[in-house]
Amino acid sequence: MPGEAQIRVLALAGIPEIRIGDDLGDIIANAIARTPAAVPLTTDDVLVVTQKIVSKAEGAVIDLTGVVPGADALEFAARYDKDPRQVQVVLNEARRVVRMENGVLITETPHGFVCANGGVDASNVGPDSGSLVTLLPRDPDASAGRIRSAVHARFGVDVPVVVSDSFGRPWRWGIVDVAIGVSGLLPLDDLRGVADADGRVMKSTVRAVADEFASAAELALGKTAGRPVALVRGAPFTRGDGHIADIVIPRENDLFP
Amino acid sequence: MPGEAQIRVLALAGIPEIRIGDDLGDIIANAIARTPAAVPLTTDDVLVVTQKIVSKAEGAVIDLTGVVPGADALEFAARYDKDPRQVQVVLNEARRVVRMENGVLITETPHGFVCANGGVDASNVGPDSGSLVTLLPRDPDASAGRIRSAVHARFGVDVPVVVSDSFGRPWRWGIVDVAIGVSGLLPLDDLRGVADADGRVMKSTVRAVADEFASAAELALGKTAGRPVALVRGAPFTRGDGHIADIVIPRENDLFP
Repeated sequence: MPGEAQIRVLALAGIPEIRIGDDLGDIIANAIARTPAAVPLTTDDVLVVTQKIVSKAEGAVIDLTGVVPGADALEFAARYDKDPRQVQVVLNEARRVVRMENGVLITETPHGFVCANGGVDASNVGPDSGSLVTLLPRDPDASAGRIRSAVHARFGVDVPVVVSDSFGRPWRWGIVDVAIGVSGLLPLDDLRGVADADGRVMKSTVRAVADEFASAAELALGKTAGRPVALVRGAPFTRGDGHIADIVIPRENDLFP
Repeated sequence: MPGEAQIRVLALAGIPEIRIGDDLGDIIANAIARTPAAVPLTTDDVLVVTQKIVSKAEGAVIDLTGVVPGADALEFAARYDKDPRQVQVVLNEARRVVRMENGVLITETPHGFVCANGGVDASNVGPDSGSLVTLLPRDPDASAGRIRSAVHARFGVDVPVVVSDSFGRPWRWGIVDVAIGVSGLLPLDDLRGVADADGRVMKSTVRAVADEFASAAELALGKTAGRPVALVRGAPFTRGDGHIADIVIPRENDLFP
C-alpha cells in the first residue's frame, strides 16, 4: 500500500550468560540461527548488541576488590551513598570530569562520549559478580566489526552492527539507549540539501539513525529480561564505513562543557 | 520461543496534507482503517504522532510576514544566515534563552523543553508555505489525549498516544525524535528497586520509554516521505495518567543551565 512502511525489532532468543573470553560473534550467530523470525537474514537487517555483553566478552571488567579510592572518590561516595571504589574507576577511566555534583558524576570517556559514570556499570554483570563492574569496550567500532564479520561468515549476509549503551540526557529524566559503536553503516543520515515533502530544501536535518536503532532495540529488549541482542529489520539506513566518532561533537563545538 | 520478543513499527498509510482546523483524530482513525497491518488494533499498540501535523491542525502556525524582528534577532540572523523573523518568533516563544552563540539558538519552551530554536520549524509545513513556521502545540498532552479519544471512540481500543518532535542533544551530532506529549502511558518506566537479570537491585534505572517510542517511530517514518504517524505494536509500556512534565528535569536539578 502506498505510504505504508514497516520495521520489526526482534529480541534474539537464547543468548547465554556471557563470560570473559567468549566468542561473542559465534554466540550471536548461534542465537540468530535459533530465532525463527530472524532467519533468513536480509540486507534490510541491522543488529544491535548491548554494551554489557561486549564488555564482558572482551574482559573490559574490573574487580573493585583491588581498587583503592582516592580522596575525591571517598568524599563524593560518602556524601552520596556510592561505592568509592566504583567512583575511583570512573575517575581513572575519564578523559575529563564534566560534572561532579548533586550525586551525579558525568565524565568524558576516552572515546569522547559524555555520560554518567563514564559508562562504568555494576548491573547485569553476571551471577556472583558482587564486586565486578564493566567498563566501556576500548574500541566499540572494532567490537561491532568483529560481530559483523562473524555473522557475515556464518550466513553470507553483511548485516551492520550497532553496539548500544544506556545514556542519560541533560534536561530530560530517564535513560535511552544510544550507539557507542558501529560497523557497516553511517551513524548519521545527512539530509542537508535534500528536499522535504513540500520540495523545500532542509537546512539542518541530520538524523542520528544509529542512536535511533539503539533506542528501538531497547524497547524490545528492556533492562531486566536477559535479552542483550536485537535484530532490527526494514528500517532504512546508509551502508558505509561509519565510525562512532562521527557522532561525537568535538570540544570546540561543545556548548555545554 | 523463550526469550523471543518482537515489536513492529508501522507507518500509517494515506495521511493527507494537514490544514488548520482539521480533525486530526478523525484523520488518524481513517488512516488506521486504511492500513491493513494496523487493524484490528490491540492493547499492545501505541500511536506516535509527529509534532508538525499536530501543530498545523491546531493552528500553532505563524506567518513570518507579520513578524518584526528586534535588534538581537537581527544581529544573530545576520551573523549566521538565519531568517531574523524566525529568530524573533523563537525568542518570543522562549521562557529563557539557554544558548545563543555559534549559530545555535537553544531555548527553554513554555513546556520546559530545552531544544534548538524552541521547536519552531519551517520544514514540511505544507505547499505554498514559504513564510509559515510551526510552533510547538500549546498543550501536547492534551493534543495526544484528543487523538487517543478519537481512536478509542472509533475502534473501541484504548491506544496510548505519544506526540514526538526531533531534538538535538549536547555532545552528539544529529537529531533523534523524543516525546513532547503523552496520553495513556507513563513516559518513564521506573525500574529502581527492581532486580536485574542477576537478582541485583538496580539503583538508578529509569527508562525514558516515551522517548524510545518516538525514536523507534522515526526510524520507520523518516523525514522526507510525508509519513507523519506510526503505530508501534508489542513494546512493553505501563498504562497510566502520564504527563510529559514528568520527563522534564526541573531547574533546580539542571546541571547544564
